[in-house]
This record gives sequence, structure tokens and C-alpha cells, in this order.
Amino acid sequence: MLSQVSRVAQRHACTAASRAFGTSAVARRTEYDTFGPVEVADDKYWGAQTQRSLKNFDIGGPSERMPAPLIKAFGVLKKSAAVVNRQHGLSPEVSDAIVAAADEVIQGKLNDHFPLVVWQTGSGTQTNMNTNEVISNRAIEMLGGTLGSKTPVHPNDHVNKSQSSNDSFPTAMHIAAVLETHERLLPAMEKLRDALAAKSAEFEPIIKIGRTHLQDATPLTLGQEFSGYVQQVEFGIERVKSYLPRLYYLAQGGTAVGTGINTPKGFDVAIASAIAQETGYPFQTAPNKFEALAAHDAIIEAHGALNTFAASFMKIANDIRLLGSGPRCGLGEINLPENEPGSSIMPGKVNPTQSEAVTMVCTQVFGNHVTVTVGGSNGHLELNVFKPSMIKNFLHSLRLLADSCHSFTDNCVVGIEANTQRIDTIMKESLMLVTALNPHIGYDKAAACAKKAHLEGTTLKEAAIALGHLTEEQFDQWVRPEDMIHPK
Amino acid sequence: MLSQVSRVAQRHACTAASRAFGTSAVARRTEYDTFGPVEVADDKYWGAQTQRSLKNFDIGGPSERMPAPLIKAFGVLKKSAAVVNRQHGLSPEVSDAIVAAADEVIQGKLNDHFPLVVWQTGSGTQTNMNTNEVISNRAIEMLGGTLGSKTPVHPNDHVNKSQSSNDSFPTAMHIAAVLETHERLLPAMEKLRDALAAKSAEFEPIIKIGRTHLQDATPLTLGQEFSGYVQQVEFGIERVKSYLPRLYYLAQGGTAVGTGINTPKGFDVAIASAIAQETGYPFQTAPNKFEALAAHDAIIEAHGALNTFAASFMKIANDIRLLGSGPRCGLGEINLPENEPGSSIMPGKVNPTQSEAVTMVCTQVFGNHVTVTVGGSNGHLELNVFKPSMIKNFLHSLRLLADSCHSFTDNCVVGIEANTQRIDTIMKESLMLVTALNPHIGYDKAAACAKKAHLEGTTLKEAAIALGHLTEEQFDQWVRPEDMIHPK
Amino acid sequence: MLSQVSRVAQRHACTAASRAFGTSAVARRTEYDTFGPVEVADDKYWGAQTQRSLKNFDIGGPSERMPAPLIKAFGVLKKSAAVVNRQHGLSPEVSDAIVAAADEVIQGKLNDHFPLVVWQTGSGTQTNMNTNEVISNRAIEMLGGTLGSKTPVHPNDHVNKSQSSNDSFPTAMHIAAVLETHERLLPAMEKLRDALAAKSAEFEPIIKIGRTHLQDATPLTLGQEFSGYVQQVEFGIERVKSYLPRLYYLAQGGTAVGTGINTPKGFDVAIASAIAQETGYPFQTAPNKFEALAAHDAIIEAHGALNTFAASFMKIANDIRLLGSGPRCGLGEINLPENEPGSSIMPGKVNPTQSEAVTMVCTQVFGNHVTVTVGGSNGHLELNVFKPSMIKNFLHSLRLLADSCHSFTDNCVVGIEANTQRIDTIMKESLMLVTALNPHIGYDKAAACAKKAHLEGTTLKEAAIALGHLTEEQFDQWVRPEDMIHPK
Amino acid sequence: MLSQVSRVAQRHACTAASRAFGTSAVARRTEYDTFGPVEVADDKYWGAQTQRSLKNFDIGGPSERMPAPLIKAFGVLKKSAAVVNRQHGLSPEVSDAIVAAADEVIQGKLNDHFPLVVWQTGSGTQTNMNTNEVISNRAIEMLGGTLGSKTPVHPNDHVNKSQSSNDSFPTAMHIAAVLETHERLLPAMEKLRDALAAKSAEFEPIIKIGRTHLQDATPLTLGQEFSGYVQQVEFGIERVKSYLPRLYYLAQGGTAVGTGINTPKGFDVAIASAIAQETGYPFQTAPNKFEALAAHDAIIEAHGALNTFAASFMKIANDIRLLGSGPRCGLGEINLPENEPGSSIMPGKVNPTQSEAVTMVCTQVFGNHVTVTVGGSNGHLELNVFKPSMIKNFLHSLRLLADSCHSFTDNCVVGIEANTQRIDTIMKESLMLVTALNPHIGYDKAAACAKKAHLEGTTLKEAAIALGHLTEEQFDQWVRPEDMIHPK
Repeated sequence: MLSQVSRVAQRHACTAASRAFGTSAVARRTEYDTFGPVEVADDKYWGAQTQRSLKNFDIGGPSERMPAPLIKAFGVLKKSAAVVNRQHGLSPEVSDAIVAAADEVIQGKLNDHFPLVVWQTGSGTQTNMNTNEVISNRAIEMLGGTLGSKTPVHPNDHVNKSQSSNDSFPTAMHIAAVLETHERLLPAMEKLRDALAAKSAEFEPIIKIGRTHLQDATPLTLGQEFSGYVQQVEFGIERVKSYLPRLYYLAQGGTAVGTGINTPKGFDVAIASAIAQETGYPFQTAPNKFEALAAHDAIIEAHGALNTFAASFMKIANDIRLLGSGPRCGLGEINLPENEPGSSIMPGKVNPTQSEAVTMVCTQVFGNHVTVTVGGSNGHLELNVFKPSMIKNFLHSLRLLADSCHSFTDNCVVGIEANTQRIDTIMKESLMLVTALNPHIGYDKAAACAKKAHLEGTTLKEAAIALGHLTEEQFDQWVRPEDMIHPK
Repeated sequence: MLSQVSRVAQRHACTAASRAFGTSAVARRTEYDTFGPVEVADDKYWGAQTQRSLKNFDIGGPSERMPAPLIKAFGVLKKSAAVVNRQHGLSPEVSDAIVAAADEVIQGKLNDHFPLVVWQTGSGTQTNMNTNEVISNRAIEMLGGTLGSKTPVHPNDHVNKSQSSNDSFPTAMHIAAVLETHERLLPAMEKLRDALAAKSAEFEPIIKIGRTHLQDATPLTLGQEFSGYVQQVEFGIERVKSYLPRLYYLAQGGTAVGTGINTPKGFDVAIASAIAQETGYPFQTAPNKFEALAAHDAIIEAHGALNTFAASFMKIANDIRLLGSGPRCGLGEINLPENEPGSSIMPGKVNPTQSEAVTMVCTQVFGNHVTVTVGGSNGHLELNVFKPSMIKNFLHSLRLLADSCHSFTDNCVVGIEANTQRIDTIMKESLMLVTALNPHIGYDKAAACAKKAHLEGTTLKEAAIALGHLTEEQFDQWVRPEDMIHPK
Repeated sequence: MLSQVSRVAQRHACTAASRAFGTSAVARRTEYDTFGPVEVADDKYWGAQTQRSLKNFDIGGPSERMPAPLIKAFGVLKKSAAVVNRQHGLSPEVSDAIVAAADEVIQGKLNDHFPLVVWQTGSGTQTNMNTNEVISNRAIEMLGGTLGSKTPVHPNDHVNKSQSSNDSFPTAMHIAAVLETHERLLPAMEKLRDALAAKSAEFEPIIKIGRTHLQDATPLTLGQEFSGYVQQVEFGIERVKSYLPRLYYLAQGGTAVGTGINTPKGFDVAIASAIAQETGYPFQTAPNKFEALAAHDAIIEAHGALNTFAASFMKIANDIRLLGSGPRCGLGEINLPENEPGSSIMPGKVNPTQSEAVTMVCTQVFGNHVTVTVGGSNGHLELNVFKPSMIKNFLHSLRLLADSCHSFTDNCVVGIEANTQRIDTIMKESLMLVTALNPHIGYDKAAACAKKAHLEGTTLKEAAIALGHLTEEQFDQWVRPEDMIHPK
Repeated sequence: MLSQVSRVAQRHACTAASRAFGTSAVARRTEYDTFGPVEVADDKYWGAQTQRSLKNFDIGGPSERMPAPLIKAFGVLKKSAAVVNRQHGLSPEVSDAIVAAADEVIQGKLNDHFPLVVWQTGSGTQTNMNTNEVISNRAIEMLGGTLGSKTPVHPNDHVNKSQSSNDSFPTAMHIAAVLETHERLLPAMEKLRDALAAKSAEFEPIIKIGRTHLQDATPLTLGQEFSGYVQQVEFGIERVKSYLPRLYYLAQGGTAVGTGINTPKGFDVAIASAIAQETGYPFQTAPNKFEALAAHDAIIEAHGALNTFAASFMKIANDIRLLGSGPRCGLGEINLPENEPGSSIMPGKVNPTQSEAVTMVCTQVFGNHVTVTVGGSNGHLELNVFKPSMIKNFLHSLRLLADSCHSFTDNCVVGIEANTQRIDTIMKESLMLVTALNPHIGYDKAAACAKKAHLEGTTLKEAAIALGHLTEEQFDQWVRPEDMIHPK
């Protein structure tokens, strides 16, 4: 039976206490790997290889740690492996202990025990070993053993059984990418789409000037304008969903070079199935493991969908700040919610800060896409060694976009109001209504009316009548914005 | 009845003749637009707006002209519009003439009459007008009229009827992208895939050392190694196909701002249908025309698939030059076909030149992807004005990749030969076979054997026996490369 | 004595004549290289290696040919080499002939004889050989010899004497980059800067609303606004100049791997000096030839300056279209010159087409920068094999930017007019003047005034008086735009 | 006199204590801004605007916080402003308190009080206010006042006196960039350069095969090969230094739109001077404040130097893993230090993990460069609103590169050993020595020798003698690797 009391947690408390009383010494234990012994803080579950990595890869500081969703995915993987391995000689006791420890990894309880940064071995071996070590020690602890003893739960022989970093890390990459896509990204995008759709419906009756080349053009409704945004996000959702099939393929079972050496036959299918069961998503074993280790094109592809959505989102956020520019010297067609004071020097000024955050996020996604692409293209022979960077950038982009969908929706979209009075005023001042005259007086005469009005600063009607091309009645009959927003 | 004799061609001949006799004067005619008259060389079909653009956008020189597939797509579009417009008041005679002239555009016969560069109006208006002008004048000519007279075929009123540049250009973008994808890219990728698959089959029996981190690893067959490449290209083909649905949507019918102003009801559906019929591909009218004018996310998405394939292709080309490195001081596992002398100073040296061309192409695609993405994200309100650049970069990437598939297949892949003797020699010298000992003597003892052999420069067998971990018979029984290339 | 009559040109004429008379056969001669014989069209000067490359690298079509400035640079290099080699055993007659033929290359007379595309060997060997072959044959012709005979001017032994493609191509890269920078880019940037400076001076007295976050802010003059653009271009010029020192370093003399094997001592210094003399720019031999062959960081650096300038230029072009947006429903502060009809459907509309061309160009430069960077980072050991792509992208970006400077200056900047009436009207309606009240009534009261005016749609003065924070006289005294455009 | 005891720190301790005893309630106080009251945790110094930003911009989580060097730079700025403002009416008591609080910011003592993420207002206003609020409250505390009272040290009126976010944030950007360049990046690059130079010297006598196109080429010394890396880093240092002049220019004094409104005359010069004095670097006021607020080209330029260095570093790290590939089936010319067990499944395998971390970092820098460029190009009118993202990406790239220099130097470069035996063996087997025969028997015969040896698998000497082109004595005399590594 497993002891669920965490002695490391107790030790941690003691350490904290002793620290409070001025004793600077942190208790340490000795861990071993094939390189020999290494000292590890006794309030941490990790082992020798993790500790070495900390020393050898002191790059970037704590903010560069492996993203939490990847650690969670490793929990899912190790749990599933323990379940499958039970059918291949792993004792039920050890299997159960691994499952229990892996569950804590999945729940995020052990996140403090994953200190390694992204900038490590390009295969992610050290994070795989970090997981093996933490689960091993936590399982040992649950079973009443001694941390660092590798008994009765060995990090390599048991936790990593039938696995290699080379297939485990890409498997965890796909699990993390799929879970984050389903559970974080898609709901956020759908929320944004729905909020925009609600605004589109709300704004349907409001006829306004259209603008092409930033120049006045024929009219459309504000609802129509927003419907374009809705469609962009809707297509974005389709694009995201379209990358999932190739992310459902898992490398696990390929082991070191893709051949599946040191795995029992059928292990690849069994573990994909176990992971599917654990997560509820239709994971399958990859049709070709050589590809699955040596390339991560599926991550490039998936990030491509994020890149496309970022371009869409940038367009939307840009438009909204343009439409909201002013209050008096801009377009001023919509009012954005006032969330905070805008300027430290200029009272009364409120800025499109949500658009600004979103557009910055989008440029980050564009950059991350290059990182993912270049890393993905630089694999050598049987292994791509840009794995940590690729998944880190993917998860980073995904998180930023998803959070931005929420922030932009909650703090901007839902509070947008149409400035109907201004919308109406400037539309009526515009010259674009001339287009409505084309079918009646022809392109060349219509152009002459517009030019005259433009040069003389008059209304279009005045110019058209002055030129003798029509009567006032005809103008009023022919130039009706409400007739100009759809085919005839 | 149409006169199929090209008088411009006749004029062109005369001009050439007069040039040959030292008369430098090119005959000119006067064309008009709303800005007034402008002189145009009389051996060209274009009109005033094209001529103005030549002067106003003298950027980059002839190599920067609008790509031919886009001009062809415009031909398809104008032909289809003439067919549909016949049901909306366009006279059969004019319609027929437009169809005939557009057919010549489709066939590429009039390519010399499309001199405009990409770096023009961001809506591509000038190329739309270039098309209208050329078709108008050629149609006028066929009907026996006077070039520049706009009678009986007017560039705006007839050729561009019910269209705007704002919906025409994106429609042509999608037509060009779809045609080039189906007719140029996919066949080329399939050819590469098939050639790699043939090599994979041919190389199936050849067991070789695997390499991860560029370090010796467990063995696999050369056929397995190539199977990874096959899979990459196969997935690449899937990715390309997966972007097509959104490219089949056409903007046509949205006219100036997406509302469809100045089109008859149903025009959008009818023209998509006509284009589908003309091309044989399932084009449909876009579900939202505002999105279709203001954003080109479908092009970003599609280029994303090219970007992913470029990453795959770079990996493959890189691997092949690595495997072919040598002849004596590299890996030397495969021989590449000798297509040309390699060095101007070093006789007898043959270089992986096809891989070099391919990897350069891939980096171009990576760069073009940034161009497409940034342009796509910078649309304003009702119109994205990076259209020409976006489609130019898409078609550029597509052409380079497709041509590279052919070149790499024909001049490299099909001629690759395995250097079986060297493959076998170095595999047997390697230490990686130690992995086979793991299940028999355990991880730690196996590691010790490998380390000893490595330090002392002996074979693995010698080291293992010297350490007393096994007998010679056991080694020969346990360490069999042919047992190490699949699960047990 | 050299015969300056081009027999190939004569042949070309004959060929054209025969073609005119229906004989389709082009005369051919046989050329040789170490691979054996190959047929070449007899109206071309190139030889066997060029012909092979045409067949082996059928990628991208004619628009992908090596850029002309690189061919010119090769002419400079070969001419200089012939001069230096005269002191190392090259006969004066052969040297003179090479110089004469190279001069024709420099003058662009032989451009049609350089048909190879960028997507070839990554060392550019084939273009180096193309040059050697063309110069050899043209020199042979001048000396009355037989094309293809390699006598008395051998492409390798004489034209390429003491050179390798590996040092020649990077030398030509630097020569081309320096010449284009001095002769094309810098004059264009200076012209743009001067035109903007003239507008800044012209607009100095015009006080207008400032905008931050696209929101109304405190005033500035239109001249001040333009002065920011002037400064951006001025810094851009500084940045361009700051990359030149590292481009002046030449690889020539490093030969195959950087050691200078097969060159006489001092050849590297002598040829750099000869090139400096020929061009008038201070070229020097590179301090380390291994770096100069294996990496092209100087090109990445230089393209970085183009990238930065593109970012500046995009800002400027964007601002100008924003300021010119309207005519009635945008900012409308400036009027852009009307260069062409704007819309095929909307008469009277004039678009910021120059800004659109420029911003498209800028995104191309951003993309090209990625191409250059990735290629530059992927060299292997003694040679970077992304040379053609790197220099092509550099020259492409440079040309586009330079041409855009001219186009934007001539067709936009010089014609910009301030819409002074509108500038004044909207500035006076704005609420930003509230900032002027800060020192008098404090931040919080000032904010209250602005908020009240904003909510009630009144002027700021009315609101401030209504709130009792000041008198009308005080307002007029305190709120003076002309006092708000500089420190006190 | 200032009280240096931190009551927030005390509160924090109490809070921690109460938390330990199960009281979950954190003490809160009310802070105000122009929007009204907001509750803030009483153990934090920040005020209302910071608190609002936390709620409104919940994007990305803690790892996305503003980088510490920027917060430090704000400390430098606010301290310097307090010093200068003393000459413009700020009381000495308040000035001293601000200086003391700002010193704590500079020292990093208050980092926990800067919780805002990068993805906020694009002007960085909220981080400027965060700084103002923290310094205000800490200064109030030192002076014995009440947190949140804004008395006697007001965040706007005193800490932000004569400043706007619009000039403060870019000033802090430049200060942070300069300090990090001088204190973090340059020392790290110099260390790498020196370590490579030491290896270059150590390896000077070792003659080895050169490789171009990954194919065997003429020899060079291992020291020469490393000298290329030294030169790359040396040029990289030059490039970094060359961007500093434009980073020394500070925007401060431009206030809201660049005009300097609400600053006393000369404030810009005085504060640049104060910052120069505080930091020891030659900061100057920017020659044009409009440029300095509306564009951050200097950051793009500076990141361009990082981008170039990343390309260099990628080349170096790639080469080193190629040279170290093996141990038996790769190039195997150098041995890399063994820092950790390489594989979880393959004992005895040691991987080039430092190269992998470095190359991943380089791809991140490539990506970040796109982010910086696109953000920098998208400013509108008087303000660029991608400031936080631009400086975050710059500092991110800089930190990763600097840390990588240390890690790569300490854990890889200094421990590289030449595998002299293998180097010698494979060089002598190679065919490249044929180049030495060119001057003696001519290009064509030399080529024949190499081809014969290649086809028959013999040595070059055997082939040459068999062809009768030379005697054994001649071969030994002519083919001497030590004569092939420099000009003659």
C-alpha cells in the first residue's frame, strides 16, 4: 500500500523552518548515475542526471524552465507506460507506485521538482530523466524506500522501461500539444468567435462608410465588418482542428532510432491506446517511427495554424484600434471600454491597450514560428535535436494566443459600443456614394461629380446637380446607402 | 466573327524590322483613362492605366513582374465573367470576343503584354486593369475595331463588368494557387515520394549504424532510414491537400468592400460555378466576402504547408549530403551521382550540389513565409493591400519547391547507390551494439563494456570478455545487428 | 592586338536571320570539361560546365538568374586577377585579352551569356566557371582563336589562375554588395532623406494634433512629425555605412579552404589592392580567410541594416497613408499626389499606392532577412554553401529598397501637401489641449475637465468653465497650442 | 531622515506567519487612481494602476513578467530624474526619498513588486506606473507616511515629474540594453573568443583534412580551422560595439509626443547627463525625440547584431558537433568533454549537448529577431506601441546568448581535445592531396590520378605511379601536407 504522505514536503517544511532560524544549510543526499555520485537537496525528488543538467545548462534562468504542460504530458506518458509494462513483466506493486507518482505529476503537484530549462540536450533526455528520477523517488517514498536508492523503483529499468528519450520526448510533445489545443486554445478561440458574432449581430443595422486602401469606399454595415472577423476566427478554428490528425500520431515504441529495439512487439500500439484512454483523445501509434523521431514536421504544421491565426488576430485587433481611434481626431466609429487610465501625463485619454497586447502577442507568434521552423529543418539523420525549443515555442505561442483571446474578449470585445452618431455623420459627408450613380449616369460622369465635390468641398449631391447630370429627386432616389450594402 | 490574326503581332514584326533598319522610333498610339491621355507603344495591347503604372512603379526590374500563373488565372476569371455576364446584359458578340481574348491570356500567348511588377498598388488594381485593357484591345482587334477606342469592348464596362479589383485580384490569387498546387506542386511531390520509396525498398536489406545527436547509435536499415523521408513527403502531400478547401472559396462577387454592390444577385455563386467548370476544380463562392477581401489567411495557411514541406525537404537534402560525405574522410555510406565537375581547383571532387540547391530553396521558402505572414497580418479594414506580394511569394515558393522536387529526384535520388562495403565495416567497428547487452547483463555492466572499449580502442567484444561479463559465444549470440532493427 | 568585333554577335545575327527564314536549327559547337564533351549553342560564349548546370538545375526559370551586379563583380574580379597574375607568369597577351573580355562583362555587354540560376551549387562554382568560360571564349575570339579550344586563353589555367570558386564567389559577393551600396542604395536613401527634410522644413509652421496609441494627444508641428522620418532615414544611412568596413574585406587568396594553397605569397594583398584600384573603394584582404570562406556573417550583418531600414521605411509609408486617409472619413491631414485612377469601380478615389508598394517591399526584405540568416548559419566546416542565395537575397532587398526610395520620393513625398484647414479644425476640437492645464489646476482637475467635455460632447473650454476650474481668459491664456510644442 | 526598515517586508513576514497558522486572509489596503479605488495586497508596494493591469492583462503567467534588467533601468531613470528635478522644484526631502527607493529598485530588492507581464499596454505605461507607485510607496514608507496616501511622495507629480511613459519607457529600454550589453554580453563573448583562441593556438601544429561541401578537400591545421571561429566571434564583438552609439541616445525629455511639453528647458540634456553619471556609460539626449518615441530602430539594429552573432554561433556549435561525431562512425576528429550520461538506453554514448543547447538558442534568437522587426515596423504616428515586446525579446536573446557563451565555453570549448591519431590517419587516406600535383603535372592529369584512385580504392600515390605521371620520389617530394597549408 502506498504512503501518500510526502516526506519531501515535510523535509521542505523543516528546511524552511531552519532557514527562518538562520541555519543556511540545506540537507542533502547523494544520488548516483553512471557518471558517479552527486549531491542533491534533500527536499527535491530529482536525481543525479537532473542535478548535473542544472550545473551544465545554466542558461536563461527560471523563466526558461520546461513548460508545465510538457511535464504534465510526461506524467501521462509514464503512467500509461507503467500500465502497459505490467503486461510485460513490471510488477504490479511497482506499476501501481509509478502510476500514483505519475498522477501527482499530472496534477501539477510536483512541478517544483522539474527545474530544468529548455536549453539543454536537444533530445530532451534530461527532462525525460528528470521525470524518471522524480517518479522513481516519489514512488520509492510511497513504498517506504530510501530516496536515491533506485529500489524498489528504478528510474531507468522501471519508469523508463521500453522507452528511450528519443521516443518519449516527442510523444510528450504531441500529448502536450493535443491537450493544450483541446483544453486551452479551442475554447478560447470559440469564445472570441462567439463574442465577435454577438457584436456582429448587434451591429447589423448600422450602416457606415467602408474603407479600402484606408480611403473612403462604398458603405457596409458595422455588423458586416465584424462578420469578417467572425469568419477569420471560424476559419482559424478549422485550421487548428485540421492539424490534430498528425499530432495524434505518437512516436512511442520507436525507442532509440525508430526501430523499436528493446521493446516488446506491439508495445507501440498498446501505449498509444493507453494514452488515448488516459486522455480521452484518439491518439494512435505513428505509421513511421523514423520520421517521428527525426522530424517534427507536425509541430511546424501546427504552429503554422497558430501563425495564421496570429495574422488574423493582428488584423482584427488593428482594425478595432483604428475604428476606435480618436476620440475627436480619429475615425471614432466605435468606443472601446475604458479599463485603466491611459496616460500618466494626459488626463482623460483612454488607449486601445487590449489591441496593443494582442498585436504584440501576434508578433511573438510570428517570431516563434521561425524558431520552430528552423529547428525543425535542422535535424540530423535519426534524431532531431531541437525538440525542447520546438515544443516550448509551440506551447508559448498557444498559451499567449489563448490567454489573449480571453483578455481581448473580456476586456475589449464585449464592451465595444458603436458611436452611431459619428458613423452616420461621416458616412453622409463622404463622396463614396458616387458609386451608386455608376449604373445611372455612367462611370465617367460619376467620376466628374466626385472630383468636383472633392475639389470644392461640397456635397456630392450639390456637385452632381451643378454639373447637370441629375436632379435632386434622382439623387435621393438613386443614392441610398441602405441599397448599397448588398447585390441588387 | 472574330479575326484571329493579331495585328499587334504584325506591328511588332514591323517594328522589329524598322529597328533593324536603324529607325529608332516605335509607333505609338494614344490611350485614355479618367486621368487623360497617355502614349502607348503600338505593338502592345495594354492601355493607359498599365502605362501609368510602368512609370509610377519602376521598382525591381523585369524579374519582378507579376508571375505568369497569376496572369493565367486572370484569364480564367475574365473568361468566366464574360460567360456569366451574358446572362446579365452583356451582348453575345462582346462576350464571345472577351472569351476568345481571355483564352489567349490563359494560353500564355499574351504574356509580353503584362509588364507590371509586383510592387504596385497593394490591391493589384493595376494588374486587374492591365488584364482588362489587354483583353479589351485584343477583343476589339478581333472584332475589327480600333485599339484604344474602348469600342465595342470597354475594359471597365465590359471586361470588368460586375467586378472590382478588390474581389477580382483575390479570386485570381486563389485560382492561381489552386491550379499551381494541382498541376505543378502535387505531381512533383508525388514523384519525389515515389523515388524515395523505390530507394527505401531497394535499400531494405542493408543494415547500417544509426546516428542520434550525430553520434553512433543502434542500427537500422538504410531502407528504414529512407522510409522516414518517404513519410515526411507523404505527410507533406497530405498537408498540401488539407489547405485546398479554403482556397476553393472565391471572393468574386464581393466587389468593392465585400457587400456585392453593383453585382446582380447570385453573381457570386454563378461565377464560382463558371470558374469551377472552366478549371475542373471545385471552386465555391466564399461564405463571407468581407473576410475574403480584407484578409488572405488562406494564402498564409497554404504557404504554411509549403513552409513545413521546406523544413522536411531541408532535412532530407541535408541527410543525403551527410550520408554521402567523403569520399574517404566523411560518412561515405552512399554515393551520389556525379553530375558535373565539383571544383575548379580540385580534380576528382564531386559535390552534393543538388542538396545544396534544395537547401537554398528551402531557406528561401522560410523567408517568403515571413513575407506572406507579415503582409497578411497588416490589412486595414475592408481591404488587405499586400495582395501582389502575398501571391508572388506563394507562387515563388511553390515553383521553387516543385522544380526542386524534379531536379533532386532526377539528378540525385534516382542515382543514389549504397556503399555497402563501408556501411558494413563501420557498423561492425561501432560500440552501439552494446545496447543489445542491456537485457542480458544490465545497463551498468553494459556501459562499462562500452566505456572500456572506447578508451582502449578495442572492439566491444574484446572489452566485454576482458571484463568477464560474458563469453565470446554469448556475445555472438546476443549481439546480432539483424535482431536489433525491430521490436522483439 | 585584340579584335573587338564579336563573332558570337555576328553568329547571333545569323542565327536570328536563319530563324526568321524558318530554319529551326541553332548552330552548335562542342565544348569540353573533365566530364567530357557537351553541345553548346554557337551564339553563346559559355562552355561545358555552364551547359551542364543549365540541365542539372532547371529551377525557377529565367527570373531566378544570378543578379547582374554579381556578374559585374565577377568581371571586376577576373580583370583584377589578370592584372595581378601578369606578375606571376601570365603572359601579357593573355592578360590583356582577359582584361578586355572582363571589361565587357563589367559593362554588362555579355549579360545574355550568364544564364545560370541562383539555385545551383551552393559555392557558386558554376557561376564562377560560367565567368571563366565566357571570358576565356571571348578572349580567344578577340585573339582570333577557336571558341571552345581553351587556347590561347584557358578558363581554369588562365582566367581562374590562383583562384578557387571558394574564394572567388565570396569576393564577388563583397564587391557586388559594396558597389551596389555605394552606387545604388546610399544615393537613393539620401534622396529620400532630403525630400523628407524639405517637407519637414516646409511644414514647420503647421501645428497639428499629435496621436499616440492612435488616440489624440498633445500637439506638434507637421514639420516635427516629418523630422522623425528624416531622422529615421539619416540613422538608416549611418547603419548602412557602418557595415561597409567588414564588406571591404575580401576572401580572395584563400583558394580552396582558406589556406591560400596554390597562390603565390602576397597574392591576397595584391588582388585586394587591384580591386580597390579598379573600383575606387578601399577593399582589403580579409584578416582571416577561413572565416571568409566558411561564413558570410558580413552579409547577414549588412542585410540587418537593410532590415532595419525596411522597418523604418514601413513606419514612414504607413504613417503617410494614415495621415492621408480620407478624403472625408479618415484623418485627412495631408493630400497625396494623384498618380493614377484609384479604383476600377469607384470614380474619384485616389489611393496611397506608393505607400502600398513600399510596405510590400519592406515585408519582402523582412522575409529575405530570414533567408539570409538561416543560410548564413548553416555553413559546414570550411565552406558555407548558401552563397548564391545569400547574395541574391541581399541584392534583391537592396535593389527593391533603393528603387522604392526613388519611387516613393518622386511619386509621393515631393507632392505631399498639407491640408492645413482640416489640420487646424480637428486640432481645435480635440481634448488633448487639457494637458496644458496640468501645471495650472493640477492633474486631477484637468482630467475632470477632459472627461466632462468628452461625455457631453462640448469643447474643453466649455467644460472647464462649467466646472469652475478657470475663467475663459485663463483658458485662452493657458491653452495655446503654439506653447505646447516645446519645453518651457 | 529616511527609515530604511521595510514595513512591507515586516508585513510580508507577518502575512507569511499568519498563513502558516491557517489564516488565509491577506491584509489589503485601498489604492486610488483617476478611475477610483482598488484593493491591493498590503505586503506589496504597488498601487491602483498596477493592480488594474494584473486583472486586465492576465496573459502568459509569471514567466512573462517584465525582465529584471528593464526594472533596474527604470530604477536608474527614476533616481536620475529625482536628482535633476531637485533643480526644478522638487524638494530635497522628496528627492532623497525617491533616490533611496530607486536605489532599492536598482539593487533588485523590490523585484517582487513588479508583477506585470510584457503583454500589456504597448507603450509600457503600466510598468512605468508600477515603478512610480512602488517608488512612491517605498519612499513614503521611508519618510514615515501612509502607503497609498501619495503623500508626501506622489507617483505622478513627484516620481514621474517631467516625464511621460512615452519617453520613460524607451529611455529605460536603452539603459537596459546598454547595461546588459556591457555587463553581460560583451564579457561572455570575449570569454568565448579567448577560449577558442587558446584552442586555436593549441591546435596549430595539427594538420588535418579540410572539407568543403562536406567533401574531402585540401588540408589545413586544426588551429586554422578554429581561427575562423575566433574571427567570427571577434567580428561579432565589433558588431555589438557598433550598435552602441545609437543606443546611447535617450528619448527622455520628449514627454508625450516628442515635443518636450511639460518639461523645463534643458531637462533632456540634464537627465541624459545624470544617467551617464549614474551608470558610467556615455548616454546623450537623442538628437530627435519624435524618432525616439515613434520608432525603436536602434533596438532592431542592435538585435540585428545578436542575430548575426547567433548565426556565427550556430555555425561554430554545428562544426564542433560534426568534428566530434562518432566515436567510431563519424568524423571523430575531436573529443568533446563528457558532462553527463548521454542516453537513457545506450550506455557509453556521450552527446554534443552543449552544441545542441547553443543551436536551439540561436534559432530562438532568429525568431525573436522577426518579432522585434515586425513590432518595430508597426508603429503609428507619434508612438510605437510594441515597446515591451521589443525590449523583452532583445533582453531575452541577449541573456540566452551570453549564458550560452559561458556554458559552451566552460562545458565544451575548454575541454575539447584533438584526436590526433584519427586526424592523421584519415588525412593520409584522402585523395585531396592531388591538388598538390596541379602545378607539376597539370589539372587534367591530376584529375585522372584522383579518379583512378577513387574508383579502384587505392592510394593516390599508387594511382599516379600506375598512370605513369610521376615517380614515387616525385610524389613524396611534391605531396607534402605541411606545404599545402599556406601560399608558396
